[in-house]
Amino acid sequence: MIYCAGKTLDQVRTIVAALLEGSSDILATRATPEMAEAVMALHPAVRYNILGRTLAISRNPRALTETAIAIVTAGTSDQPVAEEAAETALLFGNRVERIHDVGVAGLHRLLARLEQIRQARVVIVAAGMEGALASVVAGLVARPVIAVPTSVGYGANFNGLSALLGMLTSCAGGVGVVNIDNGYGAACLASMINQL
Amino acid sequence: MIYCAGKTLDQVRTIVAALLEGSSDILATRATPEMAEAVMALHPAVRYNILGRTLAISRNPRALTETAIAIVTAGTSDQPVAEEAAETALLFGNRVERIHDVGVAGLHRLLARLEQIRQARVVIVAAGMEGALASVVAGLVARPVIAVPTSVGYGANFNGLSALLGMLTSCAGGVGVVNIDNGYGAACLASMINQL
Amino acid sequence: MIYCAGKTLDQVRTIVAALLEGSSDILATRATPEMAEAVMALHPAVRYNILGRTLAISRNPRALTETAIAIVTAGTSDQPVAEEAAETALLFGNRVERIHDVGVAGLHRLLARLEQIRQARVVIVAAGMEGALASVVAGLVARPVIAVPTSVGYGANFNGLSALLGMLTSCAGGVGVVNIDNGYGAACLASMINQL
Amino acid sequence: MIYCAGKTLDQVRTIVAALLEGSSDILATRATPEMAEAVMALHPAVRYNILGRTLAISRNPRALTETAIAIVTAGTSDQPVAEEAAETALLFGNRVERIHDVGVAGLHRLLARLEQIRQARVVIVAAGMEGALASVVAGLVARPVIAVPTSVGYGANFNGLSALLGMLTSCAGGVGVVNIDNGYGAACLASMINQL
Amino acid sequence: MIYCAGKTLDQVRTIVAALLEGSSDILATRATPEMAEAVMALHPAVRYNILGRTLAISRNPRALTETAIAIVTAGTSDQPVAEEAAETALLFGNRVERIHDVGVAGLHRLLARLEQIRQARVVIVAAGMEGALASVVAGLVARPVIAVPTSVGYGANFNGLSALLGMLTSCAGGVGVVNIDNGYGAACLASMINQL
Amino acid sequence: MIYCAGKTLDQVRTIVAALLEGSSDILATRATPEMAEAVMALHPAVRYNILGRTLAISRNPRALTETAIAIVTAGTSDQPVAEEAAETALLFGNRVERIHDVGVAGLHRLLARLEQIRQARVVIVAAGMEGALASVVAGLVARPVIAVPTSVGYGANFNGLSALLGMLTSCAGGVGVVNIDNGYGAACLASMINQL
Amino acid sequence: MIYCAGKTLDQVRTIVAALLEGSSDILATRATPEMAEAVMALHPAVRYNILGRTLAISRNPRALTETAIAIVTAGTSDQPVAEEAAETALLFGNRVERIHDVGVAGLHRLLARLEQIRQARVVIVAAGMEGALASVVAGLVARPVIAVPTSVGYGANFNGLSALLGMLTSCAGGVGVVNIDNGYGAACLASMINQL
Amino acid sequence: MIYCAGKTLDQVRTIVAALLEGSSDILATRATPEMAEAVMALHPAVRYNILGRTLAISRNPRALTETAIAIVTAGTSDQPVAEEAAETALLFGNRVERIHDVGVAGLHRLLARLEQIRQARVVIVAAGMEGALASVVAGLVARPVIAVPTSVGYGANFNGLSALLGMLTSCAGGVGVVNIDNGYGAACLASMINQL
Repeated sequence: MIYCAGKTLDQVRTIVAALLEGSSDILATRATPEMAEAVMALHPAVRYNILGRTLAISRNPRALTETAIAIVTAGTSDQPVAEEAAETALLFGNRVERIHDVGVAGLHRLLARLEQIRQARVVIVAAGMEGALASVVAGLVARPVIAVPTSVGYGANFNGLSALLGMLTSCAGGVGVVNIDNGYGAACLASMINQL
Repeated sequence: MIYCAGKTLDQVRTIVAALLEGSSDILATRATPEMAEAVMALHPAVRYNILGRTLAISRNPRALTETAIAIVTAGTSDQPVAEEAAETALLFGNRVERIHDVGVAGLHRLLARLEQIRQARVVIVAAGMEGALASVVAGLVARPVIAVPTSVGYGANFNGLSALLGMLTSCAGGVGVVNIDNGYGAACLASMINQL
Repeated sequence: MIYCAGKTLDQVRTIVAALLEGSSDILATRATPEMAEAVMALHPAVRYNILGRTLAISRNPRALTETAIAIVTAGTSDQPVAEEAAETALLFGNRVERIHDVGVAGLHRLLARLEQIRQARVVIVAAGMEGALASVVAGLVARPVIAVPTSVGYGANFNGLSALLGMLTSCAGGVGVVNIDNGYGAACLASMINQL
Repeated sequence: MIYCAGKTLDQVRTIVAALLEGSSDILATRATPEMAEAVMALHPAVRYNILGRTLAISRNPRALTETAIAIVTAGTSDQPVAEEAAETALLFGNRVERIHDVGVAGLHRLLARLEQIRQARVVIVAAGMEGALASVVAGLVARPVIAVPTSVGYGANFNGLSALLGMLTSCAGGVGVVNIDNGYGAACLASMINQL
Repeated sequence: MIYCAGKTLDQVRTIVAALLEGSSDILATRATPEMAEAVMALHPAVRYNILGRTLAISRNPRALTETAIAIVTAGTSDQPVAEEAAETALLFGNRVERIHDVGVAGLHRLLARLEQIRQARVVIVAAGMEGALASVVAGLVARPVIAVPTSVGYGANFNGLSALLGMLTSCAGGVGVVNIDNGYGAACLASMINQL
Repeated sequence: MIYCAGKTLDQVRTIVAALLEGSSDILATRATPEMAEAVMALHPAVRYNILGRTLAISRNPRALTETAIAIVTAGTSDQPVAEEAAETALLFGNRVERIHDVGVAGLHRLLARLEQIRQARVVIVAAGMEGALASVVAGLVARPVIAVPTSVGYGANFNGLSALLGMLTSCAGGVGVVNIDNGYGAACLASMINQL
Repeated sequence: MIYCAGKTLDQVRTIVAALLEGSSDILATRATPEMAEAVMALHPAVRYNILGRTLAISRNPRALTETAIAIVTAGTSDQPVAEEAAETALLFGNRVERIHDVGVAGLHRLLARLEQIRQARVVIVAAGMEGALASVVAGLVARPVIAVPTSVGYGANFNGLSALLGMLTSCAGGVGVVNIDNGYGAACLASMINQL
Repeated sequence: MIYCAGKTLDQVRTIVAALLEGSSDILATRATPEMAEAVMALHPAVRYNILGRTLAISRNPRALTETAIAIVTAGTSDQPVAEEAAETALLFGNRVERIHDVGVAGLHRLLARLEQIRQARVVIVAAGMEGALASVVAGLVARPVIAVPTSVGYGANFNGLSALLGMLTSCAGGVGVVNIDNGYGAACLASMINQL
């Protein structure tokens, strides 16, 4: 896995080229379109998710798991983090269910998707601002919840701190928290759990 | 109004005695049972709320408002703050509806009380930990919501900071926030609104 | 309502186009002039407030309320937040009174406008730096005060934190606080109160 | 589950008595010895863990899971949190493996216990100070790691903040974090995962 | 000068006894009544201010300055800090004018004392909560203002942080700030200025 | 006085033009060279300090005070703040003595300039990083010290926070602190003191 | 080494008894007088430093190093931390030079002891409040400086944070910082350096 | 030594030119390639390290020390800080051993290089994110460890705060910490120790 933020185009190209000499799958996060272009010149089958800013090269195709990871977001601004998680989960061989735009300010939208979420084996919740969605989902779904605070918001959000603290102090049980905007980390943990 | 925290028994007694020479209503918050006893020796009709730690002396009885202020709490530990708000609201002549223990981890309890909350003219929500209840109520009820973060919690709660930040960055509209544990201040604002 | 910060020109255009298929009013905040231009190409009657960075499309004209929301600012740098609040309040059908540049360092300017403020039904105070104006107004005017800390300032202002904490710990009663720079949220709450 | 901190002896007794009228298991955390004595007067089979400050009443005995939850601590001061987790996990029917005193300052102690940890299905790591144990364990063990920062430390530890931030920013994958000192929450999540 | 907080009775006694062998004035701050008693046994003319917790031994009497230091407080809870400042200023030979209870929530009380404040050569303002009084006084009085944030308040006050930040970011000119509750330091600076 | 940060070229030009219709002196801080050029087109005698980013228009020339304000800096990076203070002090009619580059890491440089500093009536100390210079100067010079923390530094400096906290908790008496980088505010206060 | 804070009398006694079965030296920090008494009952030659709250049992006497560690404090309140460092250094076989009460507010006291400090091989500086002493010593002495921020102070000191940040951002080279009040850690590092 | 951040090309050129008139070695940190080019025009033998952003001009060549400073990094993103340290150490005449990419998530890589690290006289550890490498190295190597937290990371890393707090609260002895990203400072201290 390559974390591209703070790396140059050349560094990313060099690292990917080196990894291509091995045979494992490759995942790059926070990749710019320029990086995507550079990597595509190195390999015939690169998957670039422009919203999630991920580059994936799958060289060990396998059947997806029967059980799914649900990836739930509060609003459209949380989708980049959710897509980073989705691409990671997919590359690791997990079936993924995306449930978008079900923030707690419009509870009916969440309730309408509840059955779908409950059928997953593990749930990732990505939410910014006050991050209340993690608590509400954990209260409604008896599954492990991996909460990803996002930096979506402004002012007293302090770049994701309000969602982070909210998720850590959640009144609902069964919630594990990862770093702000860390869709990749959430998917690593969810994949481990899904494939136990 | 007298904020008793940090005051001595003697100071509270002296201030109340002075106020009794006037004719206005008297409210003391954060009052210990000892203070209650001392004040009861000064006046025949003192109302002490042991949970809310309030002392009220009403000398200008009036009919309660027809419209009500709903006071909603997430858990039993939030009740002291809620009672401080309730006693304040009552002394100011407002009808009060208490809705307790409807935190978001058990959403069905909140949904069961929704009609009652919707009939209020203004809603006070007292919640600690991540404070998500304010967002959920504001999403469900088209009324002004006064959110009071409480210091209930530990660790990353940082004495109420997580609930405070969560309420300030709420994804739902129509929420005004007061200081941590400030039941009195929430009731002042709610009373102004209820009596407009 | 669309929060444009962090959205692309295309995303804003797409969302507005979708909303135009419905019939409700549309409000976009933190909109750049480029976004304004793009939206104006979609609809004949778009109102763009360059200072407040708001785009409003009113499709359900109604008479303004008789009672007014007063919007009070400490200094000229607080006006973008005040204008965001004003445009929101207007779109929701409220009469608005703007009172600018009455910060506490020049108290006479505030006192000169006091009667005008007192005639409003609810008051929004937008102030940065130490945010003292909220306390002073709430002490002088027996109306609900919605306080909006602004990020105006530098150094120990910490992007609006000093004003935020000051407003939350105000020594005056009847103050509800919204997020830093959240003119939209202040107006939502004020409008609910004004139209009770 | 009852969180006893901030509750009186009477409140705990009353809540337990009420719960005893139902038939579910009962767990009280942060319980003082006095509370333990009071509860023991209410029921013949109360299990009190003085180190973990937990009170457990198991009324629905079941066979423990075959797979285990490993509970790993950095130092002896982390044991109260670990015991809270252990008692919770046991009451929920999980087999528990305790691995104590394997902090990173003496890496050989951790390496000596590695096989035992690897045989667990999920790992709880409780560590204070800089909390580095979570990263090291997650790097060595391909299992979900639930990290519990503890408030053990002083000065720049800021009551657990250093361990919390360290665990959230762990360079190793597969780590989910719960609140400071939240052994109960870690065990809830670990139990869900272990029993999938 | 002796800062007694964190010192034992014996340490204070020993330090005072040693200083008494010299001939300079002695000032002890944060002194308990027990310390006062112990010091009174060492010297015939000790002045103890129970509210300000100061012990003063003046051995070099001088005429007070003609110009005065005004010491202005927002509320009664700020008086201990104000008294620490007053006793310090007096021992240094300054005339002192106390103006109490003129917080901005009741602006008329401040305006009623304005002439008295304006006659001082330098003004100390002690205020907790949001500390707005410093800005308002500095806006009204063309004198150097020494602002002392006090730890009076709770919640988002964070032990005086809100007043500290508010005073540092004051929109009014001519304000210098000292540490939270540092009445002694404010008086040192004010005395230097008054005696220039 | 005009604080130019966050203002456009047009806004600055308009404000200056309006002020020029009056007769008072004009000072603009944080002014870019472009703003300087624009203002110079409006008035024949504009003084622009490129280091201090100040624009001054003096229309009421007066003799400088006999007593001086010493402006002392720790390093060359603190000079912009010092120049902002110097220009402000000069416009207000104060004689100014600049003492640069006397940070505590090279104490001999400070000691060599001590006599010069002692001859001032009031001292401004501008220092970033740990801001220790304020304490050392206040210990050596029996004059009021106005301490200006600067944002010079990185990492644990947190944009001036380390210097700010250091100056507020100075072990030396007679220090008043202003906001981070607030050369203007320091000079306002120093000028008031110098001209008492 | 045993860190006694948060341990019971019994736990300390048990740990010491176990260690006494081996043959290494024993050091306990943050030990109360009661703990000292309990340990003295276990061994004939226990050294208790009441100021430093350390218990030392030396069983492997060795000659002290020829080179010394200088331990320098700003004020008397820093001595407990300095004594913890001194006892640790002594037990590890280092010669120790104590230089007390040389804080920067009285620079002449420091200059008078400079030669003594310069003869040490490594210097520990313990200081609270703004912690400026570390910078000044490092500027004057060409030796490694181990800086220990102490929690001495109040208000904006935030329990040692101001000294910690000040020492980390020191403008002088050659300074390594340890945790707040961590005299033990400072002496460990200084001893390693002294004995290279 | 010149800290180039925040300086202009001209300022750097001027300072270097002035220093070249003396005869001491010159080191510039945080230097851009443009600055490097400008300085190379002034002197025939400039060493520019593009990764470490250092400019070194050695005019007093000496034999390197026999003992080495080991510079150990957790990941490739920490190399700029490590190179700043390496260039500083080299200019001061120290032999340097670089050990890269041995973060704790892959402990075997660290263990494979352990002998090399142990042969150094002093060890610099540069690590971002949770900074756990400092604790693990200090536990394994009986040498002074100078820990440099780097700003590598995102979210709850808070620009290096998580690594900084983690290193300060390290459970291993013998660790001294310098400012975030301060490779220069770490090398100054390490060089002093290495050359004792």
